[in-house]
Amino acid sequence: MRSTALIAGAGALPRLLIEAAPEMLVCQLEGGAALSASEVLRFRIERLVPFFDALAERGITRVCMAGAMQRPRLEPELFDARTAALVPRLVGAMQAGDDATLRAVIGLFEEFDFEVIGADAICPDLVPGAGVLCGMPGPEDERDALRAAEIVAALGAVDVGQGAVVARGLCLAVEALPGTDAMLDFVAEHRALVGALLAAPKAGVFFKAPKPGQDRRIDLPALGPRTVAKAAAAGLAGIVFEAGGVLLLDRDQTVQAAEAAGIFLWGHNR
Amino acid sequence: MRSTALIAGAGALPRLLIEAAPEMLVCQLEGGAALSASEVLRFRIERLVPFFDALAERGITRVCMAGAMQRPRLEPELFDARTAALVPRLVGAMQAGDDATLRAVIGLFEEFDFEVIGADAICPDLVPGAGVLCGMPGPEDERDALRAAEIVAALGAVDVGQGAVVARGLCLAVEALPGTDAMLDFVAEHRALVGALLAAPKAGVFFKAPKPGQDRRIDLPALGPRTVAKAAAAGLAGIVFEAGGVLLLDRDQTVQAAEAAGIFLWGHNR
Repeated sequence: MRSTALIAGAGALPRLLIEAAPEMLVCQLEGGAALSASEVLRFRIERLVPFFDALAERGITRVCMAGAMQRPRLEPELFDARTAALVPRLVGAMQAGDDATLRAVIGLFEEFDFEVIGADAICPDLVPGAGVLCGMPGPEDERDALRAAEIVAALGAVDVGQGAVVARGLCLAVEALPGTDAMLDFVAEHRALVGALLAAPKAGVFFKAPKPGQDRRIDLPALGPRTVAKAAAAGLAGIVFEAGGVLLLDRDQTVQAAEAAGIFLWGHNR
Repeated sequence: MRSTALIAGAGALPRLLIEAAPEMLVCQLEGGAALSASEVLRFRIERLVPFFDALAERGITRVCMAGAMQRPRLEPELFDARTAALVPRLVGAMQAGDDATLRAVIGLFEEFDFEVIGADAICPDLVPGAGVLCGMPGPEDERDALRAAEIVAALGAVDVGQGAVVARGLCLAVEALPGTDAMLDFVAEHRALVGALLAAPKAGVFFKAPKPGQDRRIDLPALGPRTVAKAAAAGLAGIVFEAGGVLLLDRDQTVQAAEAAGIFLWGHNR
């Protein structure tokens, strides 16, 4: 991984990747809180092309973007001429939304001959494949998972959400802007509504997947111990995620939490 | 309306229709709370065909189904032979869900030569058409309404919800089993999340429409003063409903409540 640069944003993911491959070159946007890496190369969007040159000079051939990055304000006086020539493309992408911005940034790295890799190429454990990690999902859980997957796919087509909760075929909630935790809290609050329909003490699944057509190398949705706690509090039987499509942060801790709460974790192949 | 029978379930709608056309024959499933109509003809699902005969004998040619009906338990010993012959169809439809049950019941009425009409045929004011009932929606509200309509249409295709909340293009919530009130409470709770993105004190619309392909003669979604209060508490600019697709119960009171809260009510043609 000596030839790999980590473009590190905020959150737990960059730290986990640095632990897995400490020999990577860590790069951060100027202005962000410094990571505890041996050396951090700071860069600015206004001088992106010189940054690409600096990476190439150090023998970097692959880059991995990880963690949330805020859109920086651009200072016109800092641009070099080659980066300035890229501005129309960058600004257009930024105005078209987060996904477009990320696709544009990936495209730029690739134009400058860097290979863009996902977090799973550095630490495969972070992105579990197909299989049950704990617990025992039954046929009703699988039916709920398939129904939820269908709902999430329909929503993805209109660029909404990456998750839904289905219990015995009933859609209890759909993820929107407020996010996963808010949705699971909502289910916990309204579960009594459907209690009469559900014989089992725990029923229903939370299903999580990337948006259809999303580039799997960046910005995958994440699950962790907190998600497990919220899903358990919502009375669900388990969490189903798309195999290879979701980051499982703190895997051991997440699996232990799920085992303790008696809920299953299942990587599902569509 | 002397030749019209009202098949009355629970809720405010049957009462409003009886007030609008008191000469209708009011029919109720045995077991439900009696309505204050001059005469109520009670019927049982197990004796549906004799009930059809009784309607025809009284000169009934049109029926309107209004209000929520619980699925009754069937008592095998009460069936007559002709109704018993219909059981396989009825049971199949009941197991396929609410929409299928209603379609099957409409189909039976039609087979027995009754015309099935919607509540709007009795009281047109109940189902407003296109037009702004109060307030002044702006171009941003229309964009939000179109985005929400697109989301609701995508969800309808997977048989979920009839409503969504969109503010400045952001999907704040999607209606699922817990219903409209629960969704609007959720928006009220999480609105602070997007407050920074929204300059206006009120922004966003709640959009409500029937499911795509739904028979408009039965089971239309409803709006009322309570919906207005919840939408106002959620900080929304207004409520948009599909023209001709939503019941507006207590129209005067609903419009007054919206005017008092400073939010618009808009019947929108897709």
